[in-house]
Amino acid sequence: MSFLLNAWYVAAFSDELNGATPLARTLLDRPVVLYRDSEGAAHALDDRCAHRFAPLSRGRVVGGVLECPYHGLRFDGAGRCVHNPHGDGRVPAQAHVRAYPVVERFGAVWFWPGEAARADIALLPAFDFVDPAQNHTHHGYLKTRAHYQLSADNLLDLSHFQFLHPDTLGSEAIASGDVQSGSLGETVWVRRAVFGEILQPFVADGFGIAAGTCVDRWMDVKWTPPGLLTIVVGVTGAGQPREAGRIAPSAHWLTPETACTTHYFFAFGLPKAMGDEGRALVRYAVEGLMKPFELEDLPMLEAQQACIGEADFWAAQPALLPIDRGAIRARRIMESMIVAERAGHDPRDANHHDGARTIAIRSSFEVA
Amino acid sequence: MSFLLNAWYVAAFSDELNGATPLARTLLDRPVVLYRDSEGAAHALDDRCAHRFAPLSRGRVVGGVLECPYHGLRFDGAGRCVHNPHGDGRVPAQAHVRAYPVVERFGAVWFWPGEAARADIALLPAFDFVDPAQNHTHHGYLKTRAHYQLSADNLLDLSHFQFLHPDTLGSEAIASGDVQSGSLGETVWVRRAVFGEILQPFVADGFGIAAGTCVDRWMDVKWTPPGLLTIVVGVTGAGQPREAGRIAPSAHWLTPETACTTHYFFAFGLPKAMGDEGRALVRYAVEGLMKPFELEDLPMLEAQQACIGEADFWAAQPALLPIDRGAIRARRIMESMIVAERAGHDPRDANHHDGARTIAIRSSFEVA
Amino acid sequence: MSFLLNAWYVAAFSDELNGATPLARTLLDRPVVLYRDSEGAAHALDDRCAHRFAPLSRGRVVGGVLECPYHGLRFDGAGRCVHNPHGDGRVPAQAHVRAYPVVERFGAVWFWPGEAARADIALLPAFDFVDPAQNHTHHGYLKTRAHYQLSADNLLDLSHFQFLHPDTLGSEAIASGDVQSGSLGETVWVRRAVFGEILQPFVADGFGIAAGTCVDRWMDVKWTPPGLLTIVVGVTGAGQPREAGRIAPSAHWLTPETACTTHYFFAFGLPKAMGDEGRALVRYAVEGLMKPFELEDLPMLEAQQACIGEADFWAAQPALLPIDRGAIRARRIMESMIVAERAGHDPRDANHHDGARTIAIRSSFEVA
Repeated sequence: MSFLLNAWYVAAFSDELNGATPLARTLLDRPVVLYRDSEGAAHALDDRCAHRFAPLSRGRVVGGVLECPYHGLRFDGAGRCVHNPHGDGRVPAQAHVRAYPVVERFGAVWFWPGEAARADIALLPAFDFVDPAQNHTHHGYLKTRAHYQLSADNLLDLSHFQFLHPDTLGSEAIASGDVQSGSLGETVWVRRAVFGEILQPFVADGFGIAAGTCVDRWMDVKWTPPGLLTIVVGVTGAGQPREAGRIAPSAHWLTPETACTTHYFFAFGLPKAMGDEGRALVRYAVEGLMKPFELEDLPMLEAQQACIGEADFWAAQPALLPIDRGAIRARRIMESMIVAERAGHDPRDANHHDGARTIAIRSSFEVA
Repeated sequence: MSFLLNAWYVAAFSDELNGATPLARTLLDRPVVLYRDSEGAAHALDDRCAHRFAPLSRGRVVGGVLECPYHGLRFDGAGRCVHNPHGDGRVPAQAHVRAYPVVERFGAVWFWPGEAARADIALLPAFDFVDPAQNHTHHGYLKTRAHYQLSADNLLDLSHFQFLHPDTLGSEAIASGDVQSGSLGETVWVRRAVFGEILQPFVADGFGIAAGTCVDRWMDVKWTPPGLLTIVVGVTGAGQPREAGRIAPSAHWLTPETACTTHYFFAFGLPKAMGDEGRALVRYAVEGLMKPFELEDLPMLEAQQACIGEADFWAAQPALLPIDRGAIRARRIMESMIVAERAGHDPRDANHHDGARTIAIRSSFEVA
Repeated sequence: MSFLLNAWYVAAFSDELNGATPLARTLLDRPVVLYRDSEGAAHALDDRCAHRFAPLSRGRVVGGVLECPYHGLRFDGAGRCVHNPHGDGRVPAQAHVRAYPVVERFGAVWFWPGEAARADIALLPAFDFVDPAQNHTHHGYLKTRAHYQLSADNLLDLSHFQFLHPDTLGSEAIASGDVQSGSLGETVWVRRAVFGEILQPFVADGFGIAAGTCVDRWMDVKWTPPGLLTIVVGVTGAGQPREAGRIAPSAHWLTPETACTTHYFFAFGLPKAMGDEGRALVRYAVEGLMKPFELEDLPMLEAQQACIGEADFWAAQPALLPIDRGAIRARRIMESMIVAERAGHDPRDANHHDGARTIAIRSSFEVA
């Protein structure tokens, strides 16, 4: 199963593209070079010179265009060769490199690996809560040596907090919480409510809860293709209304590096109106999560990948549980979109008859 | 050529399985988890959760069963899921992992990777001299990046002591020693007698021989499938009867990790009646052998493997010598057992007409 | 595309083969052992014992023949087994290893991987200026993880000095220099003349030019199959005749290690008549070039290789420029020689109709 191409993927955080240094990054198995031109606009090109395949990312930005480090050809943001320093300076007709549609939004540079004519900013999901113009934001990054869908599975089923993160994020109350999931069109949601829970210190401190206090916690996860998730975690006093509590929203963006490795971008945002406290909290959340993400999730995802290997996920015949509903729904949506795209259709037509599909998938769980 | 499956292989030394920590080990290309239940009984399961393929070896033993580290499913020694902490707790019918027959004997945990119904303790070869109940024993382990049969070749032809271990185990007298080999059913033996030899200090000290003393040494190797060897080395004064000398028996167990890597388990045992001297001698032997094994044999085996690569041993067209008789006989036995097993027969029926085969193989040597 | 086999390749510098220690080196994907016999003659054999594939290079030279480190068989320079220390000492008929024709010339050991009967010293190109008998010579070596033809491309188009070596070998004047290229039979030449150039300190010092002096520089490259180049760099005062200047000739020998890695041997030579100055200059050149070669060329070649991967160079559809003429001509010559060899013909018959080919290749550049 290959990648969905006609979709927006995060290529980098905006602050990774600074000044005159190009950034090399493999995205969906393609070596890509990212850079900013003289006006600060971000561009994404194939990272190989049309002449002799030198990586343009090792070159320099000269007058807003990229100069190849080997023989000095220069390419603009549209991938056109605009300068040949040799001989009569003529540029061969085929001296161009592929340029990808790029849009900068929500503190990130997004790129569209499919047909340029289909790239539509309206298809970008809303992540306004991490828009740096209105919010204090902070972000983290991990490279994961696992298929990006395994990361989506992980985020769509937070029951694993109890077992994989017992000392940082979880508690004995998680697995027995109330879980609901569903989907609408291309969007999948999973909502977990945990009652009468004693939080781990890292979580309690983040929500301003005194140690040992009994609380209710909810964790709402929303997924959209190809791997863009919003997670809202909220905490309130046990038995209190949610409105009396506080929430922490976060964005989780999964971009395949290769078939078996993933760029995991994540970010927290809180309104600028929260002032210094908001600024401190988003930093606290990102820095604190790096430990369980890196030391607990990441080794697990990589172990799963190592176990599955090159095989298809379904060929490994997982024994599914009700907690897998959201993750499986997301996998099915991706599969039908990729099938539609390969058949030459718009992948967004693939999930129209959504109600019927949901029922079919549920009944397979009951059988399990 | 694949592995023989209906056979006992050593999975671990008994003392590697302690308390509540599971042990991960790849055996015959399968990731396996080994653990002890509440009664201390050893178990071997596929090291992947039936749910989402997490490695069970990273979980913990709870109440004598294995808990998956990702979502908390628990599996007993038969591979049955006995606990689902989520939702209504029901267990999907397919939530089981493969369990392998296991028996603990001679200080080791043995597992049977083939059909469970064929697993028969009576098929376990006798290695009573390293049974810790009656003996002082000590053991060593090396991971070798070479096919296990190359290790068997190495052990079945100790003429290499002279060339590969000149300063530790060998001498100039080895190659000119008297060698006899033969086979009976599935067992191959090679016996080498060396006369009038001056031993290296490590060997002389181990046998209580004064430096520079002229001795006779014999080295008797016995191999049984799939790669289980007994080596008895004896030393006596030059021209003296063997009964006047001393022997040091050792066990050498080869378990394929993958097609090109091997778990090499070896152990020495001497009767408890020998008291502290016996205890010291088995430790002396193992510790002293680690150096030539690791620094001389292992690089040679790995170089051979690198040279042969993925190719079949025979495709590389070895120019065989009479000293290879035992090793080639062992290879032929393994090959016919694997062929028989693949054809659906009991592999132990493969070597019945042994006499005729021996003759055929001998004559191929004469041609060589 | 495989390698040309009926050709001389450099296997090692002469001074790498010293005394009794064999040298292991992979050449054209073959593990080869090089050693000197009692008369000092160099030999090249397949580096695997005929018996059990042990690497002979780990053995020792005994009485002018190679002893296998595993079981002590000995092989002479013709690859014949001349000693079996076991049993009755008979040598099996098939106990021989392949020996390659070898000739020692120009400070290097050359080997011929193809049919021994076709090996002809007359086919060795002349590199008399690095013959240590008449010259002060000094040499360097780099292992490059790139196809050897990418190294040839690099050496056949020195316009890259300006972009890849701006601070060591290049200047802003290089790309605008005058370039001519052509071929005669199997030989390709590219001549670049740069006028009114200010040299980098490393180059200026090497030619005895004061800092900031305006000079004319020429760089003449000659290539012959399979990857043997002479580069003559000359410098004279701006507008002065070449005869008033000085030259520095160097040899560059590319031997494939594997399909994607290359042994790069290079050497400088100056007549012994130059005395100590000549001796110092060749050392200065080699030592000074190691930095740009290792830190600038080598990463670029490896990046190109990583980009092309297993694909054929042409399948990657390079957008060629006039500066590529020489390199492309060399590639075409190699391709036709390999095709001829595979068809069973003498590869040196492949480039007879040279004039016509040159025209055809030029016109493809004009189209570009």
